[in-house]
Amino acid sequence: SEMAVAKFETKNALSAWADAPKKRIIDWVTAVTTEGASDFIPVADRIAVFDNDGTLWPEQPVPNQAQYMFDYLKKEMPNHPEWQKDAVLNGAAKGDFEPLKKAGMIGLMNLIDKTHTVQTEDEFEASVKTWIDTTMSKKYNRPYNEIVYLPMIQLLDYLKANEFKNFIVSGGGADFMRAFAEEAYDIPPYQVIGSYGETKYEVIDGVPTITKVSGDVYVDDKAGKPQAIHRFIGKKPVFCGGNSDGDQAMMQYTSSSKYKSMCVILHHTDGEREFEYDLKTLSGHLETALVEAKEKNWLVVDMKNDFKTIFNF
Amino acid sequence: SEMAVAKFETKNALSAWADAPKKRIIDWVTAVTTEGASDFIPVADRIAVFDNDGTLWPEQPVPNQAQYMFDYLKKEMPNHPEWQKDAVLNGAAKGDFEPLKKAGMIGLMNLIDKTHTVQTEDEFEASVKTWIDTTMSKKYNRPYNEIVYLPMIQLLDYLKANEFKNFIVSGGGADFMRAFAEEAYDIPPYQVIGSYGETKYEVIDGVPTITKVSGDVYVDDKAGKPQAIHRFIGKKPVFCGGNSDGDQAMMQYTSSSKYKSMCVILHHTDGEREFEYDLKTLSGHLETALVEAKEKNWLVVDMKNDFKTIFNF
Ligand SMILES: [Ca+2]
Ligand SMILES: [Ca+2]
Repeated sequence: SEMAVAKFETKNALSAWADAPKKRIIDWVTAVTTEGASDFIPVADRIAVFDNDGTLWPEQPVPNQAQYMFDYLKKEMPNHPEWQKDAVLNGAAKGDFEPLKKAGMIGLMNLIDKTHTVQTEDEFEASVKTWIDTTMSKKYNRPYNEIVYLPMIQLLDYLKANEFKNFIVSGGGADFMRAFAEEAYDIPPYQVIGSYGETKYEVIDGVPTITKVSGDVYVDDKAGKPQAIHRFIGKKPVFCGGNSDGDQAMMQYTSSSKYKSMCVILHHTDGEREFEYDLKTLSGHLETALVEAKEKNWLVVDMKNDFKTIFNF
Repeated sequence: SEMAVAKFETKNALSAWADAPKKRIIDWVTAVTTEGASDFIPVADRIAVFDNDGTLWPEQPVPNQAQYMFDYLKKEMPNHPEWQKDAVLNGAAKGDFEPLKKAGMIGLMNLIDKTHTVQTEDEFEASVKTWIDTTMSKKYNRPYNEIVYLPMIQLLDYLKANEFKNFIVSGGGADFMRAFAEEAYDIPPYQVIGSYGETKYEVIDGVPTITKVSGDVYVDDKAGKPQAIHRFIGKKPVFCGGNSDGDQAMMQYTSSSKYKSMCVILHHTDGEREFEYDLKTLSGHLETALVEAKEKNWLVVDMKNDFKTIFNF
């Protein structure tokens, strides 16, 4: 029998997906975008949210933003003699992460602080853009902004074509992601929500300047995700894509929509083409969300079998 | 001579504006939207920001959100015996604002806290919507969401038609404004930036619930405006509309765009059709921004002469 088709489906939409998950996505989009159908969602309420690390691009062996921090430390270390006395910073710059692991959350927050603050918004953006355009992933030998999941890019495009508005809602740094999301995902900065810190505004020599400074950090993870959706979007999503227990709260929140909603969890099952992990990993622990996925009929994507192609190379 | 016309101008765009400011706006929009012209701004960078109180709707005799708080206090007072012992709350509910004025910022923050927290996001939205649909302004004898400046609505429409993205960046509460901005201004919640407080996320009887709670408040005014633009939009605006010194920082920020930018200040000069104020007012003090407007050639709108019509009634 023929597959149902959504209004704006092009012939090759979702071509990198296996048939079963592809059909499920298309059936849902068709149901909610067909005018007059009982599950129709008005365009204004077609809000889709996506986690980033492990959902739109890889997060192994370490999240790309962590690699950016290590590279930044290494590059800037000669200019900061005081960093060389800090075991965590000095170790991370040299590829020794044992001091960082021992220092726990406090060490990590200091690492983030040193690599992300005391820079203007323009300086930070330029620094991330240069890094992402010129640094090669060791595993794939390509710049990081090309190492994105093709099926998920197709999904973003497909939803956008069907008049959904795609937002990133990720634990990654908002300013970090905004430096590449428009080019990599066709998602503009004001639809990128992430963790963020404090800034100050000053007019320096006549130039209004926003500088990233030390202070409180909003952590956009777990309960922080639906809270950030409330703060930044102000509407409950109807679609949510994620890959870890950190996304479980925003999936619950999405599932409580008055509309027929859809949640998708990427399960990293392909150790050959990508990485295989769920329970034993520093980034992307997936356990309780899988249990709730069964109860709530969220779509669990087995990346090994459900992604015909993972990358566009 | 004929006026220049922007790409998407309709015949009656900006019809409520006098000729001189109208020409200036149209000339700028034409310059920055004409492909191949030296001042062309790509669609992705056409970010416009607007203050709300005193810029899109009135803020006298008190800002509408303050009136909402007073009405809410009055309605809820019987359920909160503890409020009746508080001079500020008890006074405000009865229309006596002397205790509030004496209590200064601390009294005001307590008033905001009592009227805006311990409610779920849905309860708060419903409360504001009901209030705004059913409460009549004493001066205009209409519900508040109809008392918006027609020339500014035309400007929003004109910019949107020319592929600008309109954001509100206001000292008013984000959740408060989001309850009416989509209907009143055609601006969706995720393009409404305002002051905001803390929330908590809980699953209550299986229902994911976001509740507004006491805690830190982000005040989206003065330097907080460009900082919020950085936090929420992540791009520098090219157009800014405001009416007070509280908008001066975001006008400076806009003026520092690499593109040809435009800033517009509403000067409330019409005591007959609206209100006349600048230096002597609790809301909307306008002084230093007028000085900088001359230096930087920002458009100062004399509402009495430059708005042919103020309201659409
Ligand atoms: Ca993730
Ligand atoms: Ca104002």
